[in-house]
Amino acid sequence: MPIRLDSCSADFPARFSEFLATKREVSADVDHAVRAIVADVAARGDAALIELSLKFDRVDLGKLGLRVSAQEIAAAEATCDPKALEALKLARDRIEAFHIRQKPKDDRFTDALGVELGHRWTAIEAVGLYVPGGTAAYPSSVLMNAVPAKVAGVPRIVMVVPSPDGVINPLVLAAAKLGGVDEIYRVGGAQAVAALAYGTQTMKPVSKIVGPGNAYVAAAKRQVFGKVGIDMIAGPSEVLVLADGTANPDWIAADLLAQAEHDEAAQSILITNDERLAGDVEAAVASQLKTLPRTAIASASWRDYGATIIVRNLDEALPLVDALAPEHLELIAADPESLIGKIRNAGAIFVGGYTPEAIGDYVGGSNHVLPTARSARFSSGLGVLDFVKRTSILKCGPDQLAALGPAAIALGEAEGLDAHARSVAIRLNRR
Amino acid sequence: MPIRLDSCSADFPARFSEFLATKREVSADVDHAVRAIVADVAARGDAALIELSLKFDRVDLGKLGLRVSAQEIAAAEATCDPKALEALKLARDRIEAFHIRQKPKDDRFTDALGVELGHRWTAIEAVGLYVPGGTAAYPSSVLMNAVPAKVAGVPRIVMVVPSPDGVINPLVLAAAKLGGVDEIYRVGGAQAVAALAYGTQTMKPVSKIVGPGNAYVAAAKRQVFGKVGIDMIAGPSEVLVLADGTANPDWIAADLLAQAEHDEAAQSILITNDERLAGDVEAAVASQLKTLPRTAIASASWRDYGATIIVRNLDEALPLVDALAPEHLELIAADPESLIGKIRNAGAIFVGGYTPEAIGDYVGGSNHVLPTARSARFSSGLGVLDFVKRTSILKCGPDQLAALGPAAIALGEAEGLDAHARSVAIRLNRR
Repeated sequence: MPIRLDSCSADFPARFSEFLATKREVSADVDHAVRAIVADVAARGDAALIELSLKFDRVDLGKLGLRVSAQEIAAAEATCDPKALEALKLARDRIEAFHIRQKPKDDRFTDALGVELGHRWTAIEAVGLYVPGGTAAYPSSVLMNAVPAKVAGVPRIVMVVPSPDGVINPLVLAAAKLGGVDEIYRVGGAQAVAALAYGTQTMKPVSKIVGPGNAYVAAAKRQVFGKVGIDMIAGPSEVLVLADGTANPDWIAADLLAQAEHDEAAQSILITNDERLAGDVEAAVASQLKTLPRTAIASASWRDYGATIIVRNLDEALPLVDALAPEHLELIAADPESLIGKIRNAGAIFVGGYTPEAIGDYVGGSNHVLPTARSARFSSGLGVLDFVKRTSILKCGPDQLAALGPAAIALGEAEGLDAHARSVAIRLNRR
Repeated sequence: MPIRLDSCSADFPARFSEFLATKREVSADVDHAVRAIVADVAARGDAALIELSLKFDRVDLGKLGLRVSAQEIAAAEATCDPKALEALKLARDRIEAFHIRQKPKDDRFTDALGVELGHRWTAIEAVGLYVPGGTAAYPSSVLMNAVPAKVAGVPRIVMVVPSPDGVINPLVLAAAKLGGVDEIYRVGGAQAVAALAYGTQTMKPVSKIVGPGNAYVAAAKRQVFGKVGIDMIAGPSEVLVLADGTANPDWIAADLLAQAEHDEAAQSILITNDERLAGDVEAAVASQLKTLPRTAIASASWRDYGATIIVRNLDEALPLVDALAPEHLELIAADPESLIGKIRNAGAIFVGGYTPEAIGDYVGGSNHVLPTARSARFSSGLGVLDFVKRTSILKCGPDQLAALGPAAIALGEAEGLDAHARSVAIRLNRR
């Protein structure tokens, strides 16, 4: 059974702390195996990719080719359900419209001394997008990763996706095309990450790697970090529903289960000031679980990590929300708008009863790649800023150097960096 | 001798690639030792900090206290050179003015369907700032890390700094006060990073840790990443001067040496289309080295990692600059402005002969914490964005859910996530 906490209980602080500290993921120690794979790909390139794909994915890329051709992509697209393709197009357009507003602006200004300052944003030159294969192959995630990169102006977007037994989900290929992916390679695992970072005879290297993956992929990303940039390491997904007595318990139950069906380590939490609602939601979850295709996964997630927390009022819930820093936060209350401004830590907020998280997962337009495992305390969901970088600009003329130089010399000398001081002094003396 | 490359040579591409791949840093494998320290501090808190500080810093924090008191800070400030303090204040004010313009704006908008979207930025609740002790204790770096956090609105800025033999650089304490640091603890190394991440009896934990440190500090930051956020792992510093025949060789030599004096692994590079200038700069470096206090360090850096690259014209240099992705780029040419827009990868650009990098290191206003080791290909210097995070906001009413719901249901079903589809359908059916 999921746990039930009550903020009125004397032991609530202790039990909440314990709940907060719950580990939902045992990360397998695959570092050693991954190190060997990365070194092999860095040294032998394509030959290593072909061998490893034969071993792990039972597919001969020597015959099939590493790169997925435009013909294959078109053929895959032709097999897709037109309704799903239409939905993907709607999603792509909405994601694009949302992310265009995130494009940061350059800035140049001249201060009172006449110093010219500013910064310039430029897109990363090449980005790699890891897409998992098999059951966790989500075309929506392809769009969520590719579209912001495209909006950012990344000139080269490279996708890697494993093809176990030669198979790639056709909708994933269709999403890649829709999302503006430039090159697709049918390789996965740590070897794909290594190929993106180091390049091979066939694949030119990229400068940053994004996208979710299993323990091997995550370990490989950590290992190549520094050589290339990486996005966050995603953990199991979570939702927190903050609701009052006006909420519909069946709807909340459906949302909790939408989270729980992802993964046995997913987490669904309800915080409410209405004990009756809590009971109704628990009952509705039990009832809805009976007819869910992925009931085994959802049941395990709800049983092991689900929670209901009763508070005296919604304000009392706010520090709990901030401590949990949920990936997804649904606010289902009489006045949800008034709560938004009081929350510091959440990846995304879904406002009101008519905004189930699933809308945001697919077609809302906002990004569904969001910080998990309480990392919303210090990080943001994926966006355009993840695909650009800023160069600062500073320009002095002789007068500005004369005005600022003495202070720079004083600090250089105070820090024992005389060559710093001299690089300023030599110019002042020569005026 | 530093290497000299010429783009006209037949072997230039190969030699440049080799130069690009030069490793300047052997990262000591301290992971194992650091893991033990982190676990010890997480388990025993203050007691572990006190023991480890006695062992590594020869200081008894049981007697002296972990936290640096306001009285101690005031006393330290009183011993500082007033000229240096004044320079720090100027630096603080200019860093603040530059970074205020980086504060990102919230966004809320309603699209054609009536869907309300947007995002909200919030400051990270608590940030830890690591400051090295001993010779590498730079008060300017304290400001460069603390001021953007303060501008971002971080309510709690915590500084840790080792006090070997009980000593802390007074100017570092003065800079912390000027920069708005809220708490200072005299503890360093991996143990300080662990204390910031896990908290102890005396130190409350933080959500993100920034600031440079030695191999132990870097390893500890990597290990606690996920539990808390971290900034980039800084490598040895670099400068690239791109100059034409109009440049003053003595000034360039001074700038190359200002970089070289940091560290034997620092790197100074000149790229020019004027062979005579290259020779003059090399001669000026040799001459200026003779009278430099840190000549041993600067000589080693210049000898081992310095380089002069001759190109036929400045346009030919641009792809080389992008490949090197220098932390600092000086443009000293007849028309430096025209080059700025052609460069994709650089941490900071210093424009024209009157803007030595040292101005930016101290009092220009832009941040001197910049991406090293070619990471300007995918990352930016420190700024306000490193201390805030974004929460996306999505709000549908019944009509918007009706408009978007079917596409979300189609994608949920296509991905085999029926509970996702149901969380939308259950609301549509109930209208």
